[in-house]
Amino acid sequence: MPPFQPITSRENPLCKQIVKLLRSSRFRRETGMTVLEGLRLCVDAARSGARFPALVVSRRLASDPEIDLLAAAADACYLLDDELFARLADTVSPQGVLCLLRLPQTAFSLRAGGYYLALERVQDPSNLGAMSRTAEALGLDGLLLSDDTCDPFAPKSLRASMGALLRLPVCCPPDFYAALEAAPVPVYACVAQAAQPVTAADFSRGAIACIGNEANGLSDRVKTLADARVTVPMAGRAESLNAAAAAAIVLWEMVRGRS
Amino acid sequence: MPPFQPITSRENPLCKQIVKLLRSSRFRRETGMTVLEGLRLCVDAARSGARFPALVVSRRLASDPEIDLLAAAADACYLLDDELFARLADTVSPQGVLCLLRLPQTAFSLRAGGYYLALERVQDPSNLGAMSRTAEALGLDGLLLSDDTCDPFAPKSLRASMGALLRLPVCCPPDFYAALEAAPVPVYACVAQAAQPVTAADFSRGAIACIGNEANGLSDRVKTLADARVTVPMAGRAESLNAAAAAAIVLWEMVRGRS
Repeated sequence: MPPFQPITSRENPLCKQIVKLLRSSRFRRETGMTVLEGLRLCVDAARSGARFPALVVSRRLASDPEIDLLAAAADACYLLDDELFARLADTVSPQGVLCLLRLPQTAFSLRAGGYYLALERVQDPSNLGAMSRTAEALGLDGLLLSDDTCDPFAPKSLRASMGALLRLPVCCPPDFYAALEAAPVPVYACVAQAAQPVTAADFSRGAIACIGNEANGLSDRVKTLADARVTVPMAGRAESLNAAAAAAIVLWEMVRGRS
Repeated sequence: MPPFQPITSRENPLCKQIVKLLRSSRFRRETGMTVLEGLRLCVDAARSGARFPALVVSRRLASDPEIDLLAAAADACYLLDDELFARLADTVSPQGVLCLLRLPQTAFSLRAGGYYLALERVQDPSNLGAMSRTAEALGLDGLLLSDDTCDPFAPKSLRASMGALLRLPVCCPPDFYAALEAAPVPVYACVAQAAQPVTAADFSRGAIACIGNEANGLSDRVKTLADARVTVPMAGRAESLNAAAAAAIVLWEMVRGRS
């Protein structure tokens, strides 16, 4: 377990790197790194075998027994005063622990008979996180993201996903639409109306469920290339089902019949 | 349409009242009022026939055509400088409109054959709002809340529900547990494990689906008084399905077979 080194200034290069990683998805891509914040997320990652290039702990949390587990997974450990940590952190009420993490690979092959969620232009990291969490819980095989979907490895996405985005295979294909067209499983466009009820779709040969932007839904391009359009029939006000709830119901229908 | 009166100081009694209504659920109960913020929420409420004791608009938004519609539903209208409005508002990026609203009635009778969502000790207004929105979209008959569930008429709950909490019958019974025990429809406790799959439950005679606290789930009391315990079978990590996604799937299963 590496010894804890104190950091006392915000001008420290590691602090500057963390602030930049929290703020800039471009910097995350360039460096191949992101920041994971909060005890549960970091412990989950360590238990899944992740190595941390750096672990940063505030004094308040330094004696927490789980910090030992994190330190054992870290290449270097740093100790910060609570006030400095709070100025660094992304959350409103920081728990007092964060770690640097190398971005996971974002390429995988779609397999025949597999079940996937594809997101086009989803803008809210909380929605992306929530849908990833549901996809993992329901045992989906992976996540496809259009390049204008928000960053799956932004700290806010990772937190909202409870780490699911680190465990679920995530793919950002160079050409999202070509990847959907070439997919070895049927592609379903989830839309708000003018479609067959999701209960009438045949998901037995695997499926990709496509969910679109929160305000505007899926593009015409996805609606056209899809093998079918499906909708969640609603008894109440149609606009009331949000993207994450609609995704939960459609993904559930996809896997409902599997034993 | 009442004329717009300018307000220039935060010390104005209406400003003080708004700040207190935004912050204190006790003050909301005592005055029987709440604050609705944002153009879409206010317009939805006006279109549903709501009357506003006061409408407050920032200068930036004063010429928006939809403000006329809101003013026609208001007993009094006030105009604020953008800066003063921003200091008053509850949201990070206020749109520039809010209105006072009388709290709706929170009593209704459960009917035989009806479909309801009951929430025990749900703490996050965003979760409460999201689940209410799903309940409305799926055509449920109402919402039962334990008295230690967060305030359904807090501005944050109302926003997250997209106004569903103003349209859906909401009941906070004096004794939540007695109300469940006396219900004329079967009561289902939604739990994470050790229960029958939700697909095996018979929802044909109506149902109350009970969802518990985000961290601890339902109390033993609800689990014991329920007619059955149901769970969403998960292929992946069980802890990964959050309360709002689990609710979406269970409520969907409840109404799935209805035509």
